[in-house]
Amino acid sequence: MSEIILHSLGAADGARHFSPHVWKVILALRHKGLAYRLNPLSFQDIPKIAGGGFRSVPVLEDGDHVETDSFAIALYLDRAYPDAPGLFPGPGQRALARMVEHHCDTTLNPPLSIALTRAMHDLMTPADQSHYRATRMRRFGESIEQLETRANEERARFIERLSLTRTILAGQPWLSGEQPAFADHVLFGTLRWQHVCVGESWLEADDPVEDWLGRCEARYGLASTHTGGVTG
Amino acid sequence: MSEIILHSLGAADGARHFSPHVWKVILALRHKGLAYRLNPLSFQDIPKIAGGGFRSVPVLEDGDHVETDSFAIALYLDRAYPDAPGLFPGPGQRALARMVEHHCDTTLNPPLSIALTRAMHDLMTPADQSHYRATRMRRFGESIEQLETRANEERARFIERLSLTRTILAGQPWLSGEQPAFADHVLFGTLRWQHVCVGESWLEADDPVEDWLGRCEARYGLASTHTGGVTG
Repeated sequence: MSEIILHSLGAADGARHFSPHVWKVILALRHKGLAYRLNPLSFQDIPKIAGGGFRSVPVLEDGDHVETDSFAIALYLDRAYPDAPGLFPGPGQRALARMVEHHCDTTLNPPLSIALTRAMHDLMTPADQSHYRATRMRRFGESIEQLETRANEERARFIERLSLTRTILAGQPWLSGEQPAFADHVLFGTLRWQHVCVGESWLEADDPVEDWLGRCEARYGLASTHTGGVTG
Repeated sequence: MSEIILHSLGAADGARHFSPHVWKVILALRHKGLAYRLNPLSFQDIPKIAGGGFRSVPVLEDGDHVETDSFAIALYLDRAYPDAPGLFPGPGQRALARMVEHHCDTTLNPPLSIALTRAMHDLMTPADQSHYRATRMRRFGESIEQLETRANEERARFIERLSLTRTILAGQPWLSGEQPAFADHVLFGTLRWQHVCVGESWLEADDPVEDWLGRCEARYGLASTHTGGVTG
């Protein structure tokens, strides 16, 4: 079997991975028990991946097969490795994962992207910082310094907006039911992004989402936010 | 077995039921094959339901048991009638239904509530019209006539925002998977609300959501929007 390569957006230290969408795929690969190599890149490296044509990560290379977009990658992994544990185990699991993805994209990630702007910037290489500064201005019409003045407010909004997740986790151990699956990986991507940038969780220890996070880390063999900082 | 009574918000004609949340419960009861009686009420009747204390519909009376809130009613029905078909068949189905509920409440229903303001008003009794006029002003700070000027724009927004549902239904026949369940009932409530107020569907005939709607109507024995208008 050829080596699976997962192209990612990396910090200046070469160890931290920023993208919530890459984290979804990391968990999916671990869920299926597949070996992989993470390849941290700079923004300017992304167009060079796998012969070109890609504008964002994750990009997954599996021998001759190249796949982008985290959801498409998850579907590919289940097709290519049907004997490994499934990412969508049961009826409605694709719909659930799509709904969680939409919830993250529209409700949780927007405040987080502002709350984390300064932290992300400070972890980048100088070249990526310039690129990032320009894209923030294009997307928000505000500088990193201007966005930073709203960070606390957006952080509070992000934490409040986890209420739907809290409601669900009050009734079942994982989003996907009795066992974790891709719907959980999707939400984890968002929260791990926060951890990676800040080095610790913003949630209270007694938050049901924090408990779920700890169980995700344990289940997938990841360094915990509670034991000395997340570096990757 | 005592008769199940479902208290609803009714139009002046005594036949149309406005509330999307009541429609979720109608489908849930039909899914489980339970007989029920729909009790259409005016706004001012709601505080008189089942000895008082209720401020909105649906309220379900099942003998001595009274339950409100559509999701709580669905959970109750599965507890009380475990041998009838389940509303959450499989792991993750509760999370899925919660996600769909949240999507409807935050993304689809807000534009629809403006787009349907005039139609709802015109179907009400004079007493309900006065009440409704006052609550619109409190909620939106705008009169029904002012809200009406935004109806077309909000209608277009609602139709566009069904894109997530279209994505999901491109890959599976029902939101819940191979068979419909409460996640489908939740979305149906929103769309049936539109039909009841206007008398026809706003979706194009080749929209995958329209196809799903027709299958929902057929599956649950409801009058179709395609055969002469929805009256209930």
